[in-house]
Amino acid sequence: MRIGMMGLGRMGANMVRRLLRDGHECVVYDINPASVAALVAEGAIGSASLDDFVAQLKQPACAWLMLPAAITGVNVDKLAALMKAGDIIIDGGNSHYHDDVDKAAQLRSKGIDYIDVGTSGGVWGLERGYCLMIGGPEAAVRYLDPVFATLAPGNEADATAASEGLRTAHLGYLHCGPSGAGHFVKMVHNGIEYGMMAAYAEGMNILKAANSGNKNREIDAETSPLPTPEYYKFDIDMAAVSEVWRHGSVISSWLLDLTADALKQDPALSAYGGRVSDSGEGRWTLDAAIDTGVPAPVLASALFQRFSSQGGSEFGDKLLSAMRFAFGGHHEKPKTEA
Amino acid sequence: MRIGMMGLGRMGANMVRRLLRDGHECVVYDINPASVAALVAEGAIGSASLDDFVAQLKQPACAWLMLPAAITGVNVDKLAALMKAGDIIIDGGNSHYHDDVDKAAQLRSKGIDYIDVGTSGGVWGLERGYCLMIGGPEAAVRYLDPVFATLAPGNEADATAASEGLRTAHLGYLHCGPSGAGHFVKMVHNGIEYGMMAAYAEGMNILKAANSGNKNREIDAETSPLPTPEYYKFDIDMAAVSEVWRHGSVISSWLLDLTADALKQDPALSAYGGRVSDSGEGRWTLDAAIDTGVPAPVLASALFQRFSSQGGSEFGDKLLSAMRFAFGGHHEKPKTEA
Amino acid sequence: MRIGMMGLGRMGANMVRRLLRDGHECVVYDINPASVAALVAEGAIGSASLDDFVAQLKQPACAWLMLPAAITGVNVDKLAALMKAGDIIIDGGNSHYHDDVDKAAQLRSKGIDYIDVGTSGGVWGLERGYCLMIGGPEAAVRYLDPVFATLAPGNEADATAASEGLRTAHLGYLHCGPSGAGHFVKMVHNGIEYGMMAAYAEGMNILKAANSGNKNREIDAETSPLPTPEYYKFDIDMAAVSEVWRHGSVISSWLLDLTADALKQDPALSAYGGRVSDSGEGRWTLDAAIDTGVPAPVLASALFQRFSSQGGSEFGDKLLSAMRFAFGGHHEKPKTEA
Amino acid sequence: MRIGMMGLGRMGANMVRRLLRDGHECVVYDINPASVAALVAEGAIGSASLDDFVAQLKQPACAWLMLPAAITGVNVDKLAALMKAGDIIIDGGNSHYHDDVDKAAQLRSKGIDYIDVGTSGGVWGLERGYCLMIGGPEAAVRYLDPVFATLAPGNEADATAASEGLRTAHLGYLHCGPSGAGHFVKMVHNGIEYGMMAAYAEGMNILKAANSGNKNREIDAETSPLPTPEYYKFDIDMAAVSEVWRHGSVISSWLLDLTADALKQDPALSAYGGRVSDSGEGRWTLDAAIDTGVPAPVLASALFQRFSSQGGSEFGDKLLSAMRFAFGGHHEKPKTEA
Repeated sequence: MRIGMMGLGRMGANMVRRLLRDGHECVVYDINPASVAALVAEGAIGSASLDDFVAQLKQPACAWLMLPAAITGVNVDKLAALMKAGDIIIDGGNSHYHDDVDKAAQLRSKGIDYIDVGTSGGVWGLERGYCLMIGGPEAAVRYLDPVFATLAPGNEADATAASEGLRTAHLGYLHCGPSGAGHFVKMVHNGIEYGMMAAYAEGMNILKAANSGNKNREIDAETSPLPTPEYYKFDIDMAAVSEVWRHGSVISSWLLDLTADALKQDPALSAYGGRVSDSGEGRWTLDAAIDTGVPAPVLASALFQRFSSQGGSEFGDKLLSAMRFAFGGHHEKPKTEA
Repeated sequence: MRIGMMGLGRMGANMVRRLLRDGHECVVYDINPASVAALVAEGAIGSASLDDFVAQLKQPACAWLMLPAAITGVNVDKLAALMKAGDIIIDGGNSHYHDDVDKAAQLRSKGIDYIDVGTSGGVWGLERGYCLMIGGPEAAVRYLDPVFATLAPGNEADATAASEGLRTAHLGYLHCGPSGAGHFVKMVHNGIEYGMMAAYAEGMNILKAANSGNKNREIDAETSPLPTPEYYKFDIDMAAVSEVWRHGSVISSWLLDLTADALKQDPALSAYGGRVSDSGEGRWTLDAAIDTGVPAPVLASALFQRFSSQGGSEFGDKLLSAMRFAFGGHHEKPKTEA
Repeated sequence: MRIGMMGLGRMGANMVRRLLRDGHECVVYDINPASVAALVAEGAIGSASLDDFVAQLKQPACAWLMLPAAITGVNVDKLAALMKAGDIIIDGGNSHYHDDVDKAAQLRSKGIDYIDVGTSGGVWGLERGYCLMIGGPEAAVRYLDPVFATLAPGNEADATAASEGLRTAHLGYLHCGPSGAGHFVKMVHNGIEYGMMAAYAEGMNILKAANSGNKNREIDAETSPLPTPEYYKFDIDMAAVSEVWRHGSVISSWLLDLTADALKQDPALSAYGGRVSDSGEGRWTLDAAIDTGVPAPVLASALFQRFSSQGGSEFGDKLLSAMRFAFGGHHEKPKTEA
Repeated sequence: MRIGMMGLGRMGANMVRRLLRDGHECVVYDINPASVAALVAEGAIGSASLDDFVAQLKQPACAWLMLPAAITGVNVDKLAALMKAGDIIIDGGNSHYHDDVDKAAQLRSKGIDYIDVGTSGGVWGLERGYCLMIGGPEAAVRYLDPVFATLAPGNEADATAASEGLRTAHLGYLHCGPSGAGHFVKMVHNGIEYGMMAAYAEGMNILKAANSGNKNREIDAETSPLPTPEYYKFDIDMAAVSEVWRHGSVISSWLLDLTADALKQDPALSAYGGRVSDSGEGRWTLDAAIDTGVPAPVLASALFQRFSSQGGSEFGDKLLSAMRFAFGGHHEKPKTEA
């Protein structure tokens, strides 16, 4: 079928490629003409303006946005101004599900269907397929089924998921509920992702410290001694360990596959400084947990560790040192390079 | 090759079966004669006593113990008393790596090699192969290579791991270092496992609460109101969501495969009451983190949530209610069935 | 000066009493006439309706609301409809500071000043004085100074705080900034309160477990053994310990005073079941931390432990047990009475 | 009475001064002769060697050690070699309670009583008195009562604590149980201290961020946007807030007194870099919680935040960035000066 894609960054462009490969017609638009030209060269239908973009869509017009969350809302509005009742707008970015609920209600009054799609897969999606979590009205979601089926990984011959009740879940896409449900499920997905990543990072960090007993340790009142150095004499090959865990262990996962690969290429991870960004979904997941009274200490710890890596704990840490000086006369030790 | 297996519980018996299938000779022993008889019927060589067990091993005698940690030490000692210099004892259970370090030193003085093997794979290992994390002297580990190769999953045709440097990691077994290194790596593996499990559990719990806005909520000074009920109107099909995440998402994993399967069979998880056991390794992982000054808030949170589920927070919770009454006159609400 | 008090619950009524004692004139109103009558008997000026209440206030009319957060907004609106430019409304309850910012802007357009006052002191405030955290326009705050000075504890002869720069902080009340600043500071105050309470609760819970080595422990694969029972043979008298800490230790505090008193009266805390409520501010504090990228793992852990005590972790815990069964065949142990 | 003090650092020297003031005779010893001379000038009895030190003690000889934990054990042994049955050794330092249990058993066989005293009060103890948590045999503890009574704060006229059942707790010293109980209680005290300090630090850090809405924020895919900048426009005077909380609020405490004072002197805390040391007790408290199955998420979070401030999370943070690059092509942002 014919579908429009607006926003041709890494994600949007690769999704167009995957759609083209499977025989769909893609009208593409981006504020950067070079991005449009590149995909036209691969078989997409280019457009020079938003009007042009909408004009080239068939009836009902289906336009998929793949834009940064901060500019999605305003572009949905511009697009909607050019569309008619019965048309469909799909937001495949990382919008807050609150915005979906609000935007869908607003567009519903014009007869335009709004669909939110949480999209996981990252830079591997072109090859591996994208996991799609979909929210919105039933009929519109069903209409777009061929698009979702192409973008998703498709059946990897998994008997487990064959049951009817699970609908398309075993194919890698799922209609999760009304507007907002797609991004809600994707939001929680990312919250879990933070927790899993932190579990591996903490564990690998402990493995790395397994040779602490071989190091000299300062002996002063400000340094807690290592109680049993004789038990910390292991030089663990972390690349090898992350590899062996991929085969038959309880913690094998796709994240572990990537971790093993990263450690193989650069065991010291010297390309990184340790400032870990977060892009919002982990925060929103916690907001939802707090609103609904669900304890989420692991997801919170994972998020807060990122905040610390970004420098967010600095004033609090200074205050702790100030208190220690005030009650105990403890002088702060200088920060050392690790 | 011929190897002895002592301790024929679920893990030990299945490992014997996997070894027999691949042509090894297994001498088996257990305090329960029926367990011995069952494996003899499948081709193993039975033994009626520990003496008998050792007598039937070839030179060097190789005996693998698959016993609960609490009784492993004493049985290693009994076994060692019957063995000669050059023989090998393998502890494949969940012993503390401190005990390995100590036991290896003790046996080394008799010329007996001691090898610790952290074994992951659970009830699926017979079919899927066991991930083996091995500690101990190089020569003895190399001698047992055929046994490890059989028990481990073997190469699942993974190009990533082909490099020489990773030795046998891509086959699912790895010599991690000297005595204790195997159980150390397995301990951290389990710590990570706790963190990953908790990440999924917290996330799914938030998904379940996505319909909180549809529920009536008590309005009183002791209940924090749900601020925006209009955004919590989703009835998420958790079995379907866990299934869709298996296909192309960043959080796909073997634990997620099992989770999806469990939710498919019993979406309400009505077979469970929510008392989550822990078997020690998560605790030891934290001990190591604390000893070496490595922050592990995610692994700690995961462990402490299990302690809470076991009732461990009760006195502390009562004290919190007592304080709230003392400063604010707040009366405790009765515990309700969830 | 003359001031109106609307909402004569425990907090409101005691604040009237403290104001009357110090010579202020208080006009009082409550939907419950008996509450009005009780304070009239103690010297307050009663009112039979909201109109009557406002009519009896002098110019500028100053009305203090001490109502549950859920009904504060609507009552502010009703009150404002009866007031003139130059009048002052004070919200002394536990409103969300967002609502203050919004409400103040709305009332400003009518010329009415809105002041938010975070009030700490609980049931002890009548005797001890209330700690007041104040937000709103400078002139109105200054106009109400005599009221704040009466409600606050007043100078407890503390030389530390004598400096001019701290204004009235050493008297127990502080103009923290524009509208919303008072409730923002109070919100964080309560977040800290949760963290401190949890620190004591966890510590006392560990003290209580100091005799674990004297107890029989089940020996099975689902119970992690106590590694060194010989070191857990202490029967700690928790009432005595909380008392001794009040004298000269680093952790002495008013909360500890209350804790010591509660343990003295009921060392087993048998009056409590351990369901710990939270009333919103702890949640909002975390929302602010998450919005601004400030790590708050301690405050989060304290809040989440309350959620767990309220039953919020139940589905997640069941899922953990389901996973353990799925990979390891572990059967859940029944929940036991602690 | 006459008592010996070995180890004349800040704590030991001040304790001697407090004892001398109250009329006790103090024999003092330190490896640094200048430390001895200084106290002799203030009325203490000096000693030039360990033999000399013991020789000047009366019968029964009572020697109090105030040494770093790392060298306490060996000095107790040296001292014990010079002492007789019926003599008493008191360890007032920060020893691990395991060592107390072991050492007491060893000395008991020689007839020497060993008493462990957890001592809180820091640099303020000379003036304010020390809070003493005491473990050891009843008779020896009773014999030393005059010494404890002098070192402790004494009754601050607190009616609450007058009951007989609490023995001497209201005076600021308490016999907590057999050997080890004193340091066990002190250990937990310090664990709580970490949690309280972190609660204040996190809260103050959130207050500091209350003006985030006034700052420019980078707009890129690696920076989560501040959702409602209009609600983060407060410039909070943190010195004033910490002062006002001291008067009538629920979170008033001695640590808050010190915090208020520190912020008054240096509101930006520019003297500190934010590397927060830990001296062992927080770690041991967690070890005890883990051993006994008591959830302690707040105490753990407080400790782990210190580890992070010491650089302990670095490798883990790098691994998180490596994973983000691997699945999403996310490039790390440079670390910025806060």
